[in-house]
Amino acid sequence: MNIPQSSFPRVVIIGGGFAGLAAAKGLEKQELQVVLVDKHNYHTFQPLLYQVATGGLEPDSIAFPLRKRFNDVDNFYFRLAEVVQIHPDKNLIETSIGNLDYDELIIATGSTTNFFGNENIQKNTMEMKSVPQSLNIRSLILENFEEALLTDNIEQRNALMNFVIVGGGPTGVELAGALAEMKKGILPKDYPDLDIRQMQINLIQSSGEILKGMSAQASEKAEDFLIKLGVNVWKNLRVLDYDGKVVTTNGIDHFRAETVIWAAGVKGEMVHGLDATCIIDRAERYKVNEFNQVDTYSNIYAIGDVACMKSEKNPYGHPMMAQPAIQQGKLVAKNILAKLFHKKTEAFVYNDKGSMATIGRNKAVVDLENWKFQGVFAWFVWMFVHLFSLIGFRNRAIVFLNWVYNYIRFDRETRLIIRPYKKKKKRI
Amino acid sequence: MNIPQSSFPRVVIIGGGFAGLAAAKGLEKQELQVVLVDKHNYHTFQPLLYQVATGGLEPDSIAFPLRKRFNDVDNFYFRLAEVVQIHPDKNLIETSIGNLDYDELIIATGSTTNFFGNENIQKNTMEMKSVPQSLNIRSLILENFEEALLTDNIEQRNALMNFVIVGGGPTGVELAGALAEMKKGILPKDYPDLDIRQMQINLIQSSGEILKGMSAQASEKAEDFLIKLGVNVWKNLRVLDYDGKVVTTNGIDHFRAETVIWAAGVKGEMVHGLDATCIIDRAERYKVNEFNQVDTYSNIYAIGDVACMKSEKNPYGHPMMAQPAIQQGKLVAKNILAKLFHKKTEAFVYNDKGSMATIGRNKAVVDLENWKFQGVFAWFVWMFVHLFSLIGFRNRAIVFLNWVYNYIRFDRETRLIIRPYKKKKKRI
Repeated sequence: MNIPQSSFPRVVIIGGGFAGLAAAKGLEKQELQVVLVDKHNYHTFQPLLYQVATGGLEPDSIAFPLRKRFNDVDNFYFRLAEVVQIHPDKNLIETSIGNLDYDELIIATGSTTNFFGNENIQKNTMEMKSVPQSLNIRSLILENFEEALLTDNIEQRNALMNFVIVGGGPTGVELAGALAEMKKGILPKDYPDLDIRQMQINLIQSSGEILKGMSAQASEKAEDFLIKLGVNVWKNLRVLDYDGKVVTTNGIDHFRAETVIWAAGVKGEMVHGLDATCIIDRAERYKVNEFNQVDTYSNIYAIGDVACMKSEKNPYGHPMMAQPAIQQGKLVAKNILAKLFHKKTEAFVYNDKGSMATIGRNKAVVDLENWKFQGVFAWFVWMFVHLFSLIGFRNRAIVFLNWVYNYIRFDRETRLIIRPYKKKKKRI
Repeated sequence: MNIPQSSFPRVVIIGGGFAGLAAAKGLEKQELQVVLVDKHNYHTFQPLLYQVATGGLEPDSIAFPLRKRFNDVDNFYFRLAEVVQIHPDKNLIETSIGNLDYDELIIATGSTTNFFGNENIQKNTMEMKSVPQSLNIRSLILENFEEALLTDNIEQRNALMNFVIVGGGPTGVELAGALAEMKKGILPKDYPDLDIRQMQINLIQSSGEILKGMSAQASEKAEDFLIKLGVNVWKNLRVLDYDGKVVTTNGIDHFRAETVIWAAGVKGEMVHGLDATCIIDRAERYKVNEFNQVDTYSNIYAIGDVACMKSEKNPYGHPMMAQPAIQQGKLVAKNILAKLFHKKTEAFVYNDKGSMATIGRNKAVVDLENWKFQGVFAWFVWMFVHLFSLIGFRNRAIVFLNWVYNYIRFDRETRLIIRPYKKKKKRI
């Protein structure tokens, strides 16, 4: 991998998401060599992927080049590579571009979509964990409407305009809300020869409430917002299968739909080589102690979504969200410095700053520890927090400009099929 | 294609580029049915593709959704389709989504890269006529630098950092200048472990001057700007072949390079079915009369790059650029209305408003009829003209914001490999 040997200890970080980036920042400008490995050359701001998928934001405004973030940092190396395996006995990782030894290893690989072993669902549904996946959804939505125009078969036309989103967490709720706004303001204008009333947006949640991790008040209000926007919310309904045509469930309802987005689960993005997983709620993650050390390995840490730190308050580990990832990344950097320079390490305590989700224009829900609120003000808070969490002035400015434009004009302008998703022959 | 029959005459336009869009605008709100067919659902602002390829602009800011442009126009239909063949005897076009008959047909398919029949060159070089092609170049440049880091073979490393641009027209000149600016301001920071002095940018022109269509003064100054930026300008050198490794020429020089961008020629994007081509300077285009009517067909028009209208002043047809395309689109719309509503048609006269090219920061050349100037002011004029030629307020605002940011920060921030271009196995 052509990383020079130095007299400083080498910390290798796998993954440049929220957790990995926070750890890398905490380790910069120290007597260390830091190597960040990622399969993309950019950090993805995942909370806004749904706006890319629905034409509200360009992909380049929520991605930030990792090299740029660190290009004034000495002893920092970035490598674009996929990790094949960890060899903890040799303190070595094996990657698509060669091997690299480490003194300390931080696994921050994040999470991937969890299909719970259902191959049909994996093959036929869309996922939304990365920029290319969001662009695939954007292409597919638009291609479906172009195709719906062409058919006189009403069943098929309705299937092309039927969107099923499985999973009522923040991703599913935000995506359903954004689709509903497209249905309201944009699609009737773009496709005047289609009857957009036939477009259905179905949000399916297996339990009795959406936004399960939030307060009952937020959950109810979010459902209320979605229904007002015209989303069909299905609770206590479990999707069993999807063959590419029909979604079957454990209820009497089934859905004939050409687009099914699977937002029903995530699991840790595990790397081969460590034998320390814990399976919680069917999601694999690395079992870590309160210092984020993986099981018995004292120099291997897992942070963020891929780490499962059980505690009395969080018997199933911390929520797989940005906040715990950032906080663990910061602390693991501190603890590695403490360990290497013989200072006292500190156990992780999650500082829950609250959570929020947006449903649409002027509609969001916010849960803070002592204050829960919904509506316009919540929506402004949501926008403010997300805008300032983005990396880079340019990205912030461009997202802000898009939001102002979309708000004033009731628009989402990047409805571009830049790389078609469907096979061409299918469209003919 | 599910286009309703109406009592109005139907005008079908193939292609939503500068020419097709101008024609469609000229025909809106008339007693006509207009159908616009394009293989993309967006208009591409081609003059700025080179900035997408070099990380200066996001693709979504130079693409504009065609449906949006016309979504308040009655009797206007857009269809996403590829045209397979024209049947002039039946007044019918055959497309990937079915047949469509027309009363008047406008062919505005633009141009495509001309490899002059060399299959090796076609297979191994990059072209830059569309948004996806520009994104491929962006990915490839960055992937090459990532790969260059990894090899100890100096020849191979230099080949990865050797860029050959064939063709000294505006596209080649602007791309070479943009690459030179990346070399200066960005790549040394992003890749501190590479010696960026080894990066070579070679611009190869077969004739004795670059920017052949412009004044001698502009050509000389542009060459001067390029050389100052560190570009190797090769004149009177013709590329004969490229096998993916080595560019061979008719001179003693050859170039070992992993990236070759072919900007040496365009040709009309012809549609099957008409027998009216004229081959000029090895570029096929439709032979049209002064009303843009194709040869003997009185209801088939070709406009823009695909049309070749010979006149005393332009014995080889008009330049394949935006200005003639827009002017022909406007006039053909007028003439079709005149013909249908029994008014007098008007012959096309090209109003040459001048031409310009930018080489880099503060460096551009502008030729007006009575005034030729170069440098900072020319650069501002270039920016102003391009900004206001973009379609849509949002696109203009975002391009402007990027330019201000890039100017102040000496940056080009969208250096993202969102869809890798090289096969993964090749990188391993």
